[in-house]
Amino acid sequence: MAPLLKDELDIVIPTIRNLDFLEVWRPFFQPYHLIIVQDGDPTRTVMVPEGFDYELYNRNDINRILGPKASCISFKDSACRCFGYMVSKKKYVYTIDDDCFVAKDPTGKDIDALAKHIQNLLCPSTPLFFNTLYDPYQEGADFVRGYPFSLREGVPTAVSHGLWLNIPDYDAPTQLVKPRERNGRYVDAVMTIPKGSLFPMCGMNLAFDRELIGPAMYFGLMGDGQPIGRYDDMWAGWCVKVICDHLGLGVKTGLPYIWHSKASNPFVNLKKEYKGIFWQEDIIPFFQAAKLTKECDTVQKCYISLSQQVKEKLGKIDPYFVKLADAMVTWIEAWDMLNSKDSKEADANGSKPKGK
Amino acid sequence: MAPLLKDELDIVIPTIRNLDFLEVWRPFFQPYHLIIVQDGDPTRTVMVPEGFDYELYNRNDINRILGPKASCISFKDSACRCFGYMVSKKKYVYTIDDDCFVAKDPTGKDIDALAKHIQNLLCPSTPLFFNTLYDPYQEGADFVRGYPFSLREGVPTAVSHGLWLNIPDYDAPTQLVKPRERNGRYVDAVMTIPKGSLFPMCGMNLAFDRELIGPAMYFGLMGDGQPIGRYDDMWAGWCVKVICDHLGLGVKTGLPYIWHSKASNPFVNLKKEYKGIFWQEDIIPFFQAAKLTKECDTVQKCYISLSQQVKEKLGKIDPYFVKLADAMVTWIEAWDMLNSKDSKEADANGSKPKGK
Repeated sequence: MAPLLKDELDIVIPTIRNLDFLEVWRPFFQPYHLIIVQDGDPTRTVMVPEGFDYELYNRNDINRILGPKASCISFKDSACRCFGYMVSKKKYVYTIDDDCFVAKDPTGKDIDALAKHIQNLLCPSTPLFFNTLYDPYQEGADFVRGYPFSLREGVPTAVSHGLWLNIPDYDAPTQLVKPRERNGRYVDAVMTIPKGSLFPMCGMNLAFDRELIGPAMYFGLMGDGQPIGRYDDMWAGWCVKVICDHLGLGVKTGLPYIWHSKASNPFVNLKKEYKGIFWQEDIIPFFQAAKLTKECDTVQKCYISLSQQVKEKLGKIDPYFVKLADAMVTWIEAWDMLNSKDSKEADANGSKPKGK
Repeated sequence: MAPLLKDELDIVIPTIRNLDFLEVWRPFFQPYHLIIVQDGDPTRTVMVPEGFDYELYNRNDINRILGPKASCISFKDSACRCFGYMVSKKKYVYTIDDDCFVAKDPTGKDIDALAKHIQNLLCPSTPLFFNTLYDPYQEGADFVRGYPFSLREGVPTAVSHGLWLNIPDYDAPTQLVKPRERNGRYVDAVMTIPKGSLFPMCGMNLAFDRELIGPAMYFGLMGDGQPIGRYDDMWAGWCVKVICDHLGLGVKTGLPYIWHSKASNPFVNLKKEYKGIFWQEDIIPFFQAAKLTKECDTVQKCYISLSQQVKEKLGKIDPYFVKLADAMVTWIEAWDMLNSKDSKEADANGSKPKGK
């Protein structure tokens, strides 16, 4: 059983609607504090079911808190959720989409996704050598013959990437080609993504250690006024993985599953993804080749270095990447502004956002 | 359903006893040709159940066929199985230990391990980018959002590494510490081991494409007269993975499971593994750093280059590695001797080994 990390974990939810989906999560989420990031029209009221402890930020709040630096937070795109990562004061963050429900394991039991994420984050990762029996720290598993003993202590886990039953996280072309495909395969495994290997990180069901990797969890410039959408979590995942590899941190994927209830519109998605489909062909080799020097010994320094490389190398593809590189710097400035020692003290005495 | 590759696959079994275990495999193995490599005393008779098509080689056969080059084939160690890879004339090889039985899937159905290996080998691998929904070529699965389209054709699969229910493949120290541990976790997944990541390859339940990677499947010098045992498959796996990464070939792991019936004696194993436990701490960084040049454009050339690096770098650790490096060269010479065009013609007219 994973411990309840009540005072150490926030749940971040981006939304444009009433959070009725929380009802099914009540047994699992109610002990935790929620940070709700309201996207779109700030005058709309987002209803939160009774009994949840939450704070809610709309666009006006984001603009007020960050001032000119609010430009780094996307609007009309779920990428806005990363504002929640920034204002959290907890060690861990779990973020989930509001169309994700409680999945069942093969025995028919409700899956406590959050408890599994906590378990994943609290036990080490093994990025330096592949273990064929998956996570060696799980009950009933271990390192197999031939696994170097010097590597069995593992490294701290920074990210736990959970998966989805029912509607898989497909891109628009795949959605169009396979409109009826559903994910019914329950794979009973958690594994570390090896060092040097990039992966497509989905923000639907994702937990991470803010203290270890928070400043790299920037979801980029997406949506309103931007040429691209639906690459927010991918962008974060590429940056995060390169930095985790450099700093000796682990990224896990696999369990837990959530139940993803409905596919987004593939035509709308195609419009959002269109440029990304071309750009990712250059972005991925770029991240595969990105180098961080020994001087980059904090997440912030790594991230600033990546932003410079983005500007220099990807800026040639499209002026968007120059803007994104600048936003990456602004994000770090904003992060540090809200997460410095002084800001924490001010926060302790300062004005509270909406919520209860 | 995987096709029956009757004329394209041999099953290689190393043994010192009667092959009663074949009875449970009869529905699955009987269509195939078996190559039995008898270890130990060549005067002993190994009984094979009625109705199987097989050829059997004992130590005298190996010495007769390879002459002085027989020195590269281990004696009194299941590493001798690689002689079977060499004399096979088929495109694919499946090798299995004689204490491995048919496992059941979670629905209670017998698992046709060989059919699943064939399916793994016939569909591509994806070593260049990680797919979070595991093998994208499986029924009901695909590439997830953010997976570059240029990489979706995949690369040819050279190796399919299957797993074990019941007795896991643990080293002696883990066996000693966890004498009662059994693997009951059926993980319904096949995945590609990413490029650049090494893994502990177990020879218990292993299939590969001889044409793509055969000459690298050398199980080294183990057992009689050698300072080490139980690193035969590990050694092969490290060499194979480095060469697959260089040549753009894929290695898959996961399904199918076999039922591993009994743990070998941990005290005997500790004696065999003892030096390997120290050596692997140097061997793994060595393979992680091994470089193959552009000129290495065949498996043979890659393997000879690795043998030179083994001699130069690992030879400093122990004279054993100098001997092993020489044996690696002998292995390639022997492979080419038995697998040249001329030898194939001679074989067509030549003397048959024992079997029917």
